[in-house]
Amino acid sequence: MSIAVGELAVRFGCELVGDPDRRVQRVATLAAADPDSLAFLANPQYRRQLATTRAGVVVLDAASASQCPSAALISANPYATYARIAALLHPEPPARPGVHPGACVDERASIDASASVGAQAVIGAHCRIGERVQIGAGCVLGEGVEIGADCLVHPRVTIERGVRLGARVRVQSGAVIGSDGFGFARDAGGWVVVPQLGAVRIGDDVEIGANTTIDRGAIEDTVIGAGVKLDNHIQIAHNVQIGEHTVMAACSGISGSTRIGARCMIAGMVGIVGHLDICDDVIITGMSMVAHSIKTPGVYSGGIPAAPAALWRRLAARFRRSEALAQRVMRLERAAGMESKEDRSHD
Amino acid sequence: MSIAVGELAVRFGCELVGDPDRRVQRVATLAAADPDSLAFLANPQYRRQLATTRAGVVVLDAASASQCPSAALISANPYATYARIAALLHPEPPARPGVHPGACVDERASIDASASVGAQAVIGAHCRIGERVQIGAGCVLGEGVEIGADCLVHPRVTIERGVRLGARVRVQSGAVIGSDGFGFARDAGGWVVVPQLGAVRIGDDVEIGANTTIDRGAIEDTVIGAGVKLDNHIQIAHNVQIGEHTVMAACSGISGSTRIGARCMIAGMVGIVGHLDICDDVIITGMSMVAHSIKTPGVYSGGIPAAPAALWRRLAARFRRSEALAQRVMRLERAAGMESKEDRSHD
Amino acid sequence: MSIAVGELAVRFGCELVGDPDRRVQRVATLAAADPDSLAFLANPQYRRQLATTRAGVVVLDAASASQCPSAALISANPYATYARIAALLHPEPPARPGVHPGACVDERASIDASASVGAQAVIGAHCRIGERVQIGAGCVLGEGVEIGADCLVHPRVTIERGVRLGARVRVQSGAVIGSDGFGFARDAGGWVVVPQLGAVRIGDDVEIGANTTIDRGAIEDTVIGAGVKLDNHIQIAHNVQIGEHTVMAACSGISGSTRIGARCMIAGMVGIVGHLDICDDVIITGMSMVAHSIKTPGVYSGGIPAAPAALWRRLAARFRRSEALAQRVMRLERAAGMESKEDRSHD
Repeated sequence: MSIAVGELAVRFGCELVGDPDRRVQRVATLAAADPDSLAFLANPQYRRQLATTRAGVVVLDAASASQCPSAALISANPYATYARIAALLHPEPPARPGVHPGACVDERASIDASASVGAQAVIGAHCRIGERVQIGAGCVLGEGVEIGADCLVHPRVTIERGVRLGARVRVQSGAVIGSDGFGFARDAGGWVVVPQLGAVRIGDDVEIGANTTIDRGAIEDTVIGAGVKLDNHIQIAHNVQIGEHTVMAACSGISGSTRIGARCMIAGMVGIVGHLDICDDVIITGMSMVAHSIKTPGVYSGGIPAAPAALWRRLAARFRRSEALAQRVMRLERAAGMESKEDRSHD
Repeated sequence: MSIAVGELAVRFGCELVGDPDRRVQRVATLAAADPDSLAFLANPQYRRQLATTRAGVVVLDAASASQCPSAALISANPYATYARIAALLHPEPPARPGVHPGACVDERASIDASASVGAQAVIGAHCRIGERVQIGAGCVLGEGVEIGADCLVHPRVTIERGVRLGARVRVQSGAVIGSDGFGFARDAGGWVVVPQLGAVRIGDDVEIGANTTIDRGAIEDTVIGAGVKLDNHIQIAHNVQIGEHTVMAACSGISGSTRIGARCMIAGMVGIVGHLDICDDVIITGMSMVAHSIKTPGVYSGGIPAAPAALWRRLAARFRRSEALAQRVMRLERAAGMESKEDRSHD
Repeated sequence: MSIAVGELAVRFGCELVGDPDRRVQRVATLAAADPDSLAFLANPQYRRQLATTRAGVVVLDAASASQCPSAALISANPYATYARIAALLHPEPPARPGVHPGACVDERASIDASASVGAQAVIGAHCRIGERVQIGAGCVLGEGVEIGADCLVHPRVTIERGVRLGARVRVQSGAVIGSDGFGFARDAGGWVVVPQLGAVRIGDDVEIGANTTIDRGAIEDTVIGAGVKLDNHIQIAHNVQIGEHTVMAACSGISGSTRIGARCMIAGMVGIVGHLDICDDVIITGMSMVAHSIKTPGVYSGGIPAAPAALWRRLAARFRRSEALAQRVMRLERAAGMESKEDRSHD
């Protein structure tokens, strides 16, 4: 497939600088592009690659256009425009509708004729699979699972009993949706299992990463809002609620019953403790521990960047001796006849 | 199903305040309960919901009973009592005994007639599956795996060769038990694989969370004691031993050959380095790095809660300059003719 | 199987102290060994077990040989020598060549006659499976996957479309190779999916741990160099490149487009942010956050070990008040007529 850059400009509302009849066949990075490729510049870290790119056309913003050695498609949001062009140039291979003969579908399940179910997949009783849904090989859907139209479920995903997905949800391989929440009541001599009776509800246009887990609610449902994007290895505990269009990067975890607002951005390896409220429009940077509710939109941090080990060892030792240092300062203040500013509480 | 609260009081040893003939059909949260529902109050964070609950009956402790607007079931341990009542009101759907025709069972495996094996499951040679065990769809059991009575293995679990589970173990989807430990010996030009020859032994009443991994021992077995509860995304490396009734929250990891005592409580995203001994009754709070053995029961911490990013940046900068600050204090001490309290060692 | 220690000495180039005709049948730990067992001493933490071992022979270094109560095989690298002997004494059970009748193989796939494919595995069109490869039960390989000779893929692994593995790669259960990278472009009202068009290339002799995920590249491939060893629960984001023989311990994550050099050693729960360059021969200790590129080989750290909670609370409070302390020191300096050493910037 190839397409004229003039047509791209029209379709995606870009200003074109260059020959509208030039055609591109594929996307490429600035560094690797050839004249048949379209590249893009969105992250300023890669600006130095612009001068030498051999791309046929580059999607970029107005400020960068003058430095572009090739044709330019000028967009206020080059990355989003690139994403749409890439989807046009590289369409996903269509799945053949129908149930693979090696799948195992309960006769009480309802599967739309336009949907596809892969080999070795298992579909439980009373499941409802919508139009054009793709269920990958080796997936297991428990009883009464509902999958909205145009969902794409990669191979080897588990969706346990009663879980409901909206439309256009994409689930990567290895994800588990609807595992039992971690609920145990302490009792003499051990722990009593607390039945996990809720399910999981996933809104439209949600992405669920590879090997990510979302536990079913203890009583009510765990709820993932429309447009939420979850990366790989994320843990969502029971009763969590995530607001619309929030994104979470890999390896982060949200403990039970915490509510996350809309349009939040949570970086990688962030841990959020249970029973908190995080308001809308909160950004949390990588490896932060969120131990208190957040009531004000803004950016929050909790990680300290690594340093050479010898230096870090000294800093960690200073940290461990920080009480002693404060007491030395107080002694100096007393000796100087100064009122000590030492505050009393520890929090 | 419905049950009289009077009968609940008798069965579970609660004092009842209210009409013993009132019947409840289900459990619910305090906020969402209707008069046919039973709710509970265990976490004081939810106490404010008690006054307005419409629940038919609430399980709570004696101190809260006077504020209960409905019938009250008074228990010294409301959460455990709630758990038992919930299990009574909402029994798990029974599995139909037998091997699904879509499963693949080696003829040398022994499966109790009361057990069930789901579609597409694979059971290796010489496996022994006990009474009333449920093996979910898509599970793979290697050669010689032993599963004790009443275990519940959710779909898509891997249990590798020679692993043994006690009775009543529950394994959530995506878990891997008996993967090879991470053992490599450095050698000229790279790494030599160290054969992982042990297996994994899991005690009775253990819970293993979704996508949790437990590596087989290098020479002897990795051992998980009875009553241990492991949440999702946990990593247990080779040769680890965990004592009875210890619980671990999600995303924590224990490195190789470390021994954890009994009745420990390990919060989420905790990392424990290898070859350590953690004694019984240790509590470790979230996101701690445990780098040394612990010989005294108690609570240990290692995480610093996140703060607004602008503040955190200043604090992190102070941390990086903490050596300079200590030297400034020492200079002041010298100027004041004070003996410097500066200690010499860095640890 | 049993073998004479004299033969082991010859085969593995060790000096033997003791009777060359003594035979051993298996490996064991120093503590559990009996006279038919071979043990080893590599980690000095276990030296105290040497004096009382009942092992028939111990592999150790020259410095420890004089304290060995049994026959000794002296090696400059006892752990690597042990690994090779263990592989000899405990060979992996050979897989029976051929495709299990319960597997589902696309007719356009090419599978070497010496390879084995387990029950319920799914092999997509145009896959190429090399000599002596073992594909475990329940694995799913997408279209056009290539697997080099002698690879061992444990059960329930997903290898998505177009991924290529070199020779002798071992993949543990639950791993996902080639999941879509986490690419979304912000746009009015939500996020646009950025097509993930690259694949994953894995070099020879790579190890991929249980439930580890490796995302396909956004445009070009994600690349894992020869000899790399990845433990369980690792996240490798799109476009990452890892140099040869680098090892990563469990639960670590590398964000998108970061390049890691050769022979690096990355401990557990390390997080590395995106678009960085980490040079060759870098060691990063556990739970570090790597937020900047590293240009100099060496050891880097970022974690502070846990402490008793009461102490830790005070230290965390000091950390939060560290700005105030610095200002008190500045006030003292001014009062003493000293030039303040306070620097101005925050980084």
